[in-house]
Amino acid sequence: MPVTAPKQIEHIGIAVKNLEQSVQFYTNLLGLTCLGYETVESEKVRVAFLEIGETRLELLEALSPDSPIAQFIEKKGEGIHHIAFQVDNSIERLEFLKEQGIRLINDTPKQGAHGNLVAFLHPKSTNGVLLELCQPQSQS
Amino acid sequence: MPVTAPKQIEHIGIAVKNLEQSVQFYTNLLGLTCLGYETVESEKVRVAFLEIGETRLELLEALSPDSPIAQFIEKKGEGIHHIAFQVDNSIERLEFLKEQGIRLINDTPKQGAHGNLVAFLHPKSTNGVLLELCQPQSQS
Repeated sequence: MPVTAPKQIEHIGIAVKNLEQSVQFYTNLLGLTCLGYETVESEKVRVAFLEIGETRLELLEALSPDSPIAQFIEKKGEGIHHIAFQVDNSIERLEFLKEQGIRLINDTPKQGAHGNLVAFLHPKSTNGVLLELCQPQSQS
Repeated sequence: MPVTAPKQIEHIGIAVKNLEQSVQFYTNLLGLTCLGYETVESEKVRVAFLEIGETRLELLEALSPDSPIAQFIEKKGEGIHHIAFQVDNSIERLEFLKEQGIRLINDTPKQGAHGNLVAFLHPKSTNGVLLELCQPQSQS
């Protein structure tokens, strides 16, 4: 399969303990614009989106102690959690990566924020980076 | 001071153990283009730049055990090291942030890759995120 380039960084996910406090920091002290909030029940998180150029920061606050974000903060502390690449052919890409021996967290895409199709590669196969492939719903 | 928005993500820095292996992963398996390499002696790192949309990934390999990147990997393992925001008034921004009680790693900008002026905020003040303010040299 010829691998096409991901279009852009779709977002950068940052795990935070206090969503409001972090939003205040990025807006009042750094000048970013908050685009809104969303609750993603499947991940047990509340998310704030901040615009920066063509991409966004996603600040993620856990809604319960068994949320993946709570577990991440427990283990590593607050900080950058993942990077998402915007792609247009996520099913084929996941198949290709699996064939190449890359470990996947999601073998097939699942529903994420904004109705996007998302899948994560395993950090063991990506030098410690939790990489998300994110396909806008309109392109599925 | 009215805080203007950073223009875009200038780059995302990723600490890796083996630069060539990581470049192969991002180019051959994910389809990104490698723009080139640079050695930054002051940080004791070799860097590879990968284009993605308007921004870049910077893969960072330590050149010696006392490089900040070697120390990061020793402590936390490979993975996302920092995010850089492109700004156009870094000296005033740093002064403003300091006035607001934000802890800075660099009180004034220093020379970084591509001759940019760069300064880091301390992760203690930014919810664990190592944030770089990066001002293109032409705008200094």
